[in-house]
Amino acid sequence: MTNKILVVNSGSSTLKFKLFDLTNEEVIVKGMVDRLGSDQSVFEITYDDHKYSYQKPLKTHTQAVDFLIEKLLDLGVIQDVSDLSGVGHRVVSGGPYFDDSVLLGKEQMAKLQSIDEYAPLHNPAERKGIEAFAEMLPDVPQVAVFDTTFHKNLPKMNQVYSIASEYDEKYGTHKYGAHGTSHDYVTHRAAEFLQKDYTKLKMISLHMGSGVSVTAVKDGKSFDTSMGFTPISGVTMSSRAGDIDISLVAFLMKKLNVTDIQEMINILNNESGLKGISGISPDMRDLIAAKDTDPKAQLAIDVFINRIIKYIGSYVAEMQGLDVLIFTAGMGENNPYIRKVILDSFAFMDVKVDEKSDFDGSGIRKITTADSSVTALVVPTDEELMIAREFDRLVNHN
Amino acid sequence: MTNKILVVNSGSSTLKFKLFDLTNEEVIVKGMVDRLGSDQSVFEITYDDHKYSYQKPLKTHTQAVDFLIEKLLDLGVIQDVSDLSGVGHRVVSGGPYFDDSVLLGKEQMAKLQSIDEYAPLHNPAERKGIEAFAEMLPDVPQVAVFDTTFHKNLPKMNQVYSIASEYDEKYGTHKYGAHGTSHDYVTHRAAEFLQKDYTKLKMISLHMGSGVSVTAVKDGKSFDTSMGFTPISGVTMSSRAGDIDISLVAFLMKKLNVTDIQEMINILNNESGLKGISGISPDMRDLIAAKDTDPKAQLAIDVFINRIIKYIGSYVAEMQGLDVLIFTAGMGENNPYIRKVILDSFAFMDVKVDEKSDFDGSGIRKITTADSSVTALVVPTDEELMIAREFDRLVNHN
Repeated sequence: MTNKILVVNSGSSTLKFKLFDLTNEEVIVKGMVDRLGSDQSVFEITYDDHKYSYQKPLKTHTQAVDFLIEKLLDLGVIQDVSDLSGVGHRVVSGGPYFDDSVLLGKEQMAKLQSIDEYAPLHNPAERKGIEAFAEMLPDVPQVAVFDTTFHKNLPKMNQVYSIASEYDEKYGTHKYGAHGTSHDYVTHRAAEFLQKDYTKLKMISLHMGSGVSVTAVKDGKSFDTSMGFTPISGVTMSSRAGDIDISLVAFLMKKLNVTDIQEMINILNNESGLKGISGISPDMRDLIAAKDTDPKAQLAIDVFINRIIKYIGSYVAEMQGLDVLIFTAGMGENNPYIRKVILDSFAFMDVKVDEKSDFDGSGIRKITTADSSVTALVVPTDEELMIAREFDRLVNHN
Repeated sequence: MTNKILVVNSGSSTLKFKLFDLTNEEVIVKGMVDRLGSDQSVFEITYDDHKYSYQKPLKTHTQAVDFLIEKLLDLGVIQDVSDLSGVGHRVVSGGPYFDDSVLLGKEQMAKLQSIDEYAPLHNPAERKGIEAFAEMLPDVPQVAVFDTTFHKNLPKMNQVYSIASEYDEKYGTHKYGAHGTSHDYVTHRAAEFLQKDYTKLKMISLHMGSGVSVTAVKDGKSFDTSMGFTPISGVTMSSRAGDIDISLVAFLMKKLNVTDIQEMINILNNESGLKGISGISPDMRDLIAAKDTDPKAQLAIDVFINRIIKYIGSYVAEMQGLDVLIFTAGMGENNPYIRKVILDSFAFMDVKVDEKSDFDGSGIRKITTADSSVTALVVPTDEELMIAREFDRLVNHN
């Protein structure tokens, strides 16, 4: 018996996928569509250690899904679409309506549409992906897994903004956070690796990809998280501003002659962060390469690290201590320089980097000494596996 | 010889004043105009232990200043306006042009007008007060003392936002902070009281009035501060929201049918904070009285304390330690409950409240034990005295 789950992450111009065999949690194929919606779309798929690449205009999500299915059949990954047990979709925001993963029927699809505005940069594209699969594979069950689910039980004081309570009651104007699937996965992996009781640990998880978020876990639950109502808030990211003064946004709108706040939000999402400060690149590797000769590259790095240090400090204070600090995602897993600078800055509270550990290695590993006050780990994240497991939990075990 | 300096704090509907004799730093008279601009203006002045109160329509700042001078003459505080050595004005933002207190000539007055937009809720009203005094007392020198001056040397990484550097170069879109005069005063008082070298202490100052800000002082300078480009940012305040997600603001504008972002900023300034969350009062004393029966009052208190704890934690982390924690301004000086909850939450890092100290007393005092890891002090602030001294420094000693 096979149990093949396709996990999908749709963006506005990309569609990433991974096909799992859930009987052994192995990845059968993975790939992506790049430049979706243009004449220069590129389709890549890796199967059986071979990487296949196709140039083909894929103008819509539906065309992309159609081509993906065609290739799965062509390559003999599946014999028939009925070989697919289901599709699991990453969705950034569940808004006020979804506080758990959900099997998507008609009613859920309509609800999904109504929450676009809770993550206007992510949800609409993800929904397009879902609708394309529903159209092309009407008999294959689909599940949505939300980045916000892990944060649904934030303590009320960390969930609300300091605005009129009636806004929250009427419109759900509170903190939803994001990257929940990743924070959930790595914190559980960490507890397992350390053979400790998850519910007894005070943990901070640093998800550092192109999006970056910091999450505090206490009493077995997300206790606080740096992203806010949407993923625009929190620390400095590749091209996203993170926390900013609202009056500064109003001031900039005047100076830049921007009348639509949404246009300003686009600037704060796409032209800011590391890219905005440095003026050269959203990629930390480029900035590290340039830092000795380019003061703005150095400043961007300093700001990036400073914001993370401040969020860690604030979460240590509100949890009243810290047991485990986790680095994950692209930069968290693969950038030893950033890890070292962050950890060294906590030497004052007896955090001690283990120079003899597999600091620059791979896989889950401990990078602090036995007598360090906090145990720091690198934990490779696997959001896709979590989504496949969520499918399994909802569909196969219900 | 007398050295009478009138210190003025003008709001849009209030004008507060204090007359100092700088030879001994004593307050000769103090008072305020309330409901300025209406038919129900109230003028109060305290002189020689008597409080005089007058009901008189004062429609403009000029009428208010005229009436103030009349009363100073009537009460015999001064024999002639030439008895006034000068006027010192509190101004919230110096914007990008003023990084120090300034003697106001024509050129400076014009510059002042050009920076209204750096503190749109404060600077215009303060400027009206200045212009009224310039009109009524053309021969008396006037000085502006800016709330931002103390923060002018923030480390670059704490000063910039994660947006395009060119915006800062062109428009000065960085953090200016506020309450600088108070943070400056109380941190210096603290070092003096403890007989320590100011430049060697890591300090955090909590200015908790109706506006609330947290400032970190390191190497003798403001190192970070919670208010931002304008005083709207940072922790939860009486009626101000503090930090908020910019996408949430855009979302709320749609829901509330607000098209002008300035209108939204007014809501975030005047209808939010403790007042917004609790729905009952912007005054912490009312919330403490109501907390046992009203969950929203309790939530507002919890959020208020939580945000302060998080800012403290973040500043401890980025300064890599803390020597002195200072409570000041209305709530900081007079609310033992809030002080106690904040300090107790840092017991995990060996902060120890001294139960035998003059915890609920008055005047500058230490409220932690000798073996506490951090020394906490209550330090009554005196921004007006600082402004009078600034006048003295600029005018009399230049």
